[in-house]
Amino acid sequence: MSLLTANAIDIVHAVRSGRTSAVDVVRETLAAVRDRDAAYNCFTGTTAERALQEARAIDAKLAAGQDPGPLAGVPYAVKNLFDVEGVTTLAGSKINADLPPAAADATAVRRLRDAGAVLVGMLNMDEYAYGFTTENTHYGPVRNPHDLNAIAGGSSGGSAAAVASGLVPLTLGSDTNGSVRLPSALCGTFGIKPTFGRVSRAGTFPLAPSLDTVGAFARSVDDLAACYDAMLGPDHRDRLTASRAAEPVTGTMRGGIDGLRIAVAGDYFEHYAEDDVLEAVAEFARLLGATRRVTLEHADKARAAAYVITAVEAGNIHLPNLQVRQADFEPRTVNRLIAGAIAPAAWYVQAQRFRQWFRDHVNALFSDVDVILAPAAPRSATPIGAASIKVRGHEMAPRAYMGMLTQPISFIGLPTITVPYVREGAMPLGVQVIARPWREDLCFRVAHVLEQAGIARSPIAPAASAASR
Amino acid sequence: MSLLTANAIDIVHAVRSGRTSAVDVVRETLAAVRDRDAAYNCFTGTTAERALQEARAIDAKLAAGQDPGPLAGVPYAVKNLFDVEGVTTLAGSKINADLPPAAADATAVRRLRDAGAVLVGMLNMDEYAYGFTTENTHYGPVRNPHDLNAIAGGSSGGSAAAVASGLVPLTLGSDTNGSVRLPSALCGTFGIKPTFGRVSRAGTFPLAPSLDTVGAFARSVDDLAACYDAMLGPDHRDRLTASRAAEPVTGTMRGGIDGLRIAVAGDYFEHYAEDDVLEAVAEFARLLGATRRVTLEHADKARAAAYVITAVEAGNIHLPNLQVRQADFEPRTVNRLIAGAIAPAAWYVQAQRFRQWFRDHVNALFSDVDVILAPAAPRSATPIGAASIKVRGHEMAPRAYMGMLTQPISFIGLPTITVPYVREGAMPLGVQVIARPWREDLCFRVAHVLEQAGIARSPIAPAASAASR
Repeated sequence: MSLLTANAIDIVHAVRSGRTSAVDVVRETLAAVRDRDAAYNCFTGTTAERALQEARAIDAKLAAGQDPGPLAGVPYAVKNLFDVEGVTTLAGSKINADLPPAAADATAVRRLRDAGAVLVGMLNMDEYAYGFTTENTHYGPVRNPHDLNAIAGGSSGGSAAAVASGLVPLTLGSDTNGSVRLPSALCGTFGIKPTFGRVSRAGTFPLAPSLDTVGAFARSVDDLAACYDAMLGPDHRDRLTASRAAEPVTGTMRGGIDGLRIAVAGDYFEHYAEDDVLEAVAEFARLLGATRRVTLEHADKARAAAYVITAVEAGNIHLPNLQVRQADFEPRTVNRLIAGAIAPAAWYVQAQRFRQWFRDHVNALFSDVDVILAPAAPRSATPIGAASIKVRGHEMAPRAYMGMLTQPISFIGLPTITVPYVREGAMPLGVQVIARPWREDLCFRVAHVLEQAGIARSPIAPAASAASR
Repeated sequence: MSLLTANAIDIVHAVRSGRTSAVDVVRETLAAVRDRDAAYNCFTGTTAERALQEARAIDAKLAAGQDPGPLAGVPYAVKNLFDVEGVTTLAGSKINADLPPAAADATAVRRLRDAGAVLVGMLNMDEYAYGFTTENTHYGPVRNPHDLNAIAGGSSGGSAAAVASGLVPLTLGSDTNGSVRLPSALCGTFGIKPTFGRVSRAGTFPLAPSLDTVGAFARSVDDLAACYDAMLGPDHRDRLTASRAAEPVTGTMRGGIDGLRIAVAGDYFEHYAEDDVLEAVAEFARLLGATRRVTLEHADKARAAAYVITAVEAGNIHLPNLQVRQADFEPRTVNRLIAGAIAPAAWYVQAQRFRQWFRDHVNALFSDVDVILAPAAPRSATPIGAASIKVRGHEMAPRAYMGMLTQPISFIGLPTITVPYVREGAMPLGVQVIARPWREDLCFRVAHVLEQAGIARSPIAPAASAASR
């Protein structure tokens, strides 16, 4: 039987029950990547040998009556900023291609392996995760499986497209300003950006350490929850993760939404979103019985401050290479990195000071509401190569502006799941389901209710689905 | 009986036993400030009415058989960056003189009042706490009670000189880079700079919020401990203080030093200190039986990074006034503030990144030692107005360089007590007694042993002592 387009949990059941073997699943997956990824350009490399080894180990455990883990036999791939032992961590860059191979797996990769998942490859991204379109000059653009002429969103574009095209059921990405939530919306997948500090970032190439988080993509809430649970837990290699005990969500997310106070984010989040996106938010709100509105005051400043912090911290990280190899950087990004490195320090300090104010302000909102809904992107995916688009009369460059509705949220580290809104004949849209810090469980409960009601779903893109048959 | 030159604890005993009244003590103190402070220029204002009110309240409590608190009747004064209800918080600045009076006391002031201490006035300082000499162009220099032509050190120069001159037994100051430890050493007092985050800074004018701490000065370890204990405890107005439970030290500091592993900081701390200072450290080390040496690697970089962080954060705070009232700033500092505001942001981020490295490095040293001794200042107090001095052949400007041995320590928030080394016929010197974060109790135990042995003492400056008779 072919499990190529199956969800992760279905693969686990099939492998555990012996209806298929982990090795068969991985062979089929590697063949699909070889045959079909040219259309999307998601993968920058595969790990066939490792994948077969990991799959054989799963099958051997099963044969020996041992527990192969909650993600046994599930093929997955990671944004190429995750360290994979023996593979050079590109982080979307030409410069990094000169680096030696990673000596060890990133913590998140190690934990998925321990849970039985099977790594099949590394995924394309915006250079150094700095961009919202995955138009990568060195490795080519990632194409949206729902429209090959449209962007997949970024910076984790390869991660979203690999899931939406049915090549793998599960991928990892990172989200600093929206790099999981945005491609998730544009490709129509579920995507989680956990609370800042929740999931270990050890062994990932940083963009802006004050904001960076590790997240994941899937086509079902169950799959996303299983992946999230597998990554949880403190890690001495990333001290941020020590601050909180981590409770798995898989047992709690079926609790429904009784008693949950859900609100829709107004003002800024309406001014910069097209009608179809707002209608998706409204439809979710109706299903959830959410009639409140909340206003995140100065969300525009929050977005600007996140922009400054990102440019400055990234500029600092890349300053040594900017001084000697400027021409080897992504031409679409290099000026922003230089600007960040030489921006006045007082701006950066002011941005961090404002962050405290905004955190206090939004935390106060959470005394009245439990979950906030907001559009994930101003609109659906734009054409690859579009230098400028208009949203409600505002002209904006997709590469820097598609994340303007996600930036104020990650600015203060809130956990968010992007819930896809996919309708026949239309490009996917996405809605952010946002909770207070450390309450990922609430995001999962809301996402689960929306999925169960059939209003939210993450189909494999029709063309891709046809190609895989 | 006159208690003018008595220690705080002796005053408490005298007031509690009825040998004198709090009102008498405060009257005598206010008279002394009026008659004798012209020589030192410590006070920028007194709070006579409030002091008499507070003193009367203490006397009334005693008369009613109530507990007037552990600092009952002790007159004290505060660096003029502490908010005092009804008084404009100058922070050493001409610009701040235009501000309205403070609406409430700083938390530290409120807590000393609750402990029964009596506020008599506000003390001179370097403008905005930015300097190590208390040469204040607007309010005049503070003079060292041991030599009126010498600096008192800064930026809490008024706080140290007020204690060393016998005007009050207890004062509060702040320490960002050495502003308690340095004047403490140069005036020969005990001084504490607690762990970063230990004592509430609410209601104090900031210099550099990533480094600022509130501290205190006294002429005995008992007095310093009583003052420290009174300020302890979480404060919702300064969220940093919520991170740790606070244990009073007064009950523990007589525990001695048996089993304590004490080391002397070498290298950097020797290269920039004169022989007499190193001899003071060595004498303390001999008394304590400390034979180990430790090296804080890259202490020079730690000092440079603290310098960058301070300039940038202060530059950010003062940027609005720098743009419109540049001529009203302290001419000795204004260029440093401007430089901080326009320094490249990448420098600031790099300084904060290095801070993490240095913290890890020094924390690792603390697995082998409990307490580290280091000189507090490169040398004794320099002449007021000296633009440049030499220390071991290194030419340096006192205003910016006197704190170079304190900066690497506060850079990573370590608690430190300056223990005075005062010998007849010589200017005071000081030694930093440094512990790992949150272990102020160890500093107190070592300081207490040194004081009990008679090797460390904080006499009232001889001339001041004669004048007060």
